[in-house]
Amino acid sequence: MGSRREILGIGAGMAAAGLMPGFASRAFAAESRRDRKIGYAVVGLGYYATRQIMPNFTGCEHSRLVALVSGTPAKLEQYGTQYGIPKTHRYSYAQFDSLRDNPDIDAVYIVLPNSLHAEYSIRAAQAGKHVLCEKPMATSVAECQAMIAACRKAGKKLMIGYRSRFEPYNRLAIELARGGHVGPTRFITAEHGFPIQPGQWRLDKALSGGGSMMDIGIYSLNAARYLTGEEPLEVSAVESTDRSDPRFATVEDRIGFVLHFPSGIQANCISSYSSAHNGYRVTGTQGWIAMEPATSYTGQAMTIRKDGVIAPRTLPPAARNQFASQLDHLAECVLTGATPIVSGEEGLADMRIIEAIYRSMVERRHIGLTA
Amino acid sequence: MGSRREILGIGAGMAAAGLMPGFASRAFAAESRRDRKIGYAVVGLGYYATRQIMPNFTGCEHSRLVALVSGTPAKLEQYGTQYGIPKTHRYSYAQFDSLRDNPDIDAVYIVLPNSLHAEYSIRAAQAGKHVLCEKPMATSVAECQAMIAACRKAGKKLMIGYRSRFEPYNRLAIELARGGHVGPTRFITAEHGFPIQPGQWRLDKALSGGGSMMDIGIYSLNAARYLTGEEPLEVSAVESTDRSDPRFATVEDRIGFVLHFPSGIQANCISSYSSAHNGYRVTGTQGWIAMEPATSYTGQAMTIRKDGVIAPRTLPPAARNQFASQLDHLAECVLTGATPIVSGEEGLADMRIIEAIYRSMVERRHIGLTA
Repeated sequence: MGSRREILGIGAGMAAAGLMPGFASRAFAAESRRDRKIGYAVVGLGYYATRQIMPNFTGCEHSRLVALVSGTPAKLEQYGTQYGIPKTHRYSYAQFDSLRDNPDIDAVYIVLPNSLHAEYSIRAAQAGKHVLCEKPMATSVAECQAMIAACRKAGKKLMIGYRSRFEPYNRLAIELARGGHVGPTRFITAEHGFPIQPGQWRLDKALSGGGSMMDIGIYSLNAARYLTGEEPLEVSAVESTDRSDPRFATVEDRIGFVLHFPSGIQANCISSYSSAHNGYRVTGTQGWIAMEPATSYTGQAMTIRKDGVIAPRTLPPAARNQFASQLDHLAECVLTGATPIVSGEEGLADMRIIEAIYRSMVERRHIGLTA
Repeated sequence: MGSRREILGIGAGMAAAGLMPGFASRAFAAESRRDRKIGYAVVGLGYYATRQIMPNFTGCEHSRLVALVSGTPAKLEQYGTQYGIPKTHRYSYAQFDSLRDNPDIDAVYIVLPNSLHAEYSIRAAQAGKHVLCEKPMATSVAECQAMIAACRKAGKKLMIGYRSRFEPYNRLAIELARGGHVGPTRFITAEHGFPIQPGQWRLDKALSGGGSMMDIGIYSLNAARYLTGEEPLEVSAVESTDRSDPRFATVEDRIGFVLHFPSGIQANCISSYSSAHNGYRVTGTQGWIAMEPATSYTGQAMTIRKDGVIAPRTLPPAARNQFASQLDHLAECVLTGATPIVSGEEGLADMRIIEAIYRSMVERRHIGLTA
């Protein structure tokens, strides 16, 4: 592991240099900062962090893994060794606030259970770190607003881990859908779900804040928003949960929901914890753009029907995968001063709608949404 | 046309024989009746009747075209000549009630605008004829109930033209879905729509009773019911109609609706008059069964995903197409005394839900349905 550690340059103290004040101009400063890599602390060493995120720092241009935070000493030891993270850069949750004193750490990536997102994002901002937080941003609108306020007050970036926005086929779908490639969009269908195994924190509402909607249905919701570029005016949602199934003692299983957008576009969406779905289709007046799978880790497939002809649409292999591109996006925003395309406001927008979806299914009525 | 006329045996007077009372037993009577063909009067000579239904009598085993009803003398002349229908068997609407006096006519097929379905179905029953009525059955629950009562009182069959129930791929989909081929069903998505051209009776609410939902969305609704074999407990519907579009001055364009069934199955459905859709997908715990197109006149295509493997599923060519099978089904019911699988009660069940869909989208709330 020694060689990887040398390549990453961890602990060399060079990271802080680019942030020194006193450059002649902001533009010059931004230019210089592009040359360095932003140091990330990954917070929470579960499956997604260790299997999907951490291996992808090697594909980054502007990001490097410099610290780990976990409540499990054995994980800190295992992954610390694997990724060449020195003991001085391995933290327990009790030590979380001392991230402040580590100049190698520019940003934290919060990969904790949903109900901990707000607390640790806010504490990270207060420790002077930029924040990349997994979706769902938090478990309530109020938490999202507190996170945005904390990062604003600290002058730090806040980005939400909507990785599909960095995946080339999804980017193409956005371009084609919004550009009217198959005519103006009339309907979107979006389905996301998987049969969940028992015994996960996701099934404990105290940790997850909700069931399939928070975890996987949010992909359907977010896709409907990014494929339209609009915010829905109204939502109606119907729940189906077998409460006698021990998996669903505290969280919902299935939700079918309809979003109505200002231009008239409707999105019919599915969220499920008891069946497998991963796809969306944008139907315009002249055809449709379909993605299946749409938001998977790999293997996106696009099919287009236009003027009666159905054909696959393929892209050349991407230089960076969606995970590396996402990590680098926050890094680039830090280096250039730009705002992330998936900011805290984006996470808040989804959370407002999720709260409306939950209200709709409980109150059995349509819920209007105002900006 | 003479030869066809001879083959059809029109006007030979033989049709009435099988209906004569006095056979030794009902079973014997039914057996004998199977040997003859049921004579149909087609009422309304528009596109669907003349292009889709009438050409398909030649593929029938138990049905023959014996009479025509139209308000347009030129159509009676044109199609009467084409199909060898004698002048005595060509009727104007003013002459409709005199169908009673023609023993060659066993059944009428009502292919009129929706708002005329109830009146002509009831008058046909009162004239002693069995009734096959196009979908939607009528424009209200009250009309459907009156039609059922009239046919019951007259002792005549009432069948609704849900042709997909006679289409082999749809029959297979029902068998696979209800049989748990991909595990118990969790979600159904069903999309039907087409960009409607202006200037049609379908766009005049006085004739149609409603917009896309009555005309094409009913396929999504009916599919959800036949794929589950259940009646929904609740519906929620959201409308999107651009009332500045002259096509939609009196009828709705798009509806997204969610049905919740007793077993927990949800159906997310689409009805559209401004985009093309024709498909459904049944997702179970182990995969899915997809049909696209699903309810077209021809060309049904089925794809199944099971245990991670996606493959097309094909059937050998059918002996009779769905149009001929539908015509023969009513004939067989008349000959054997059976009740049509798509009875008036089936049309009424859809109409109850359509009324609930309309209420849901207007009142902006979920509408409960009781049996």
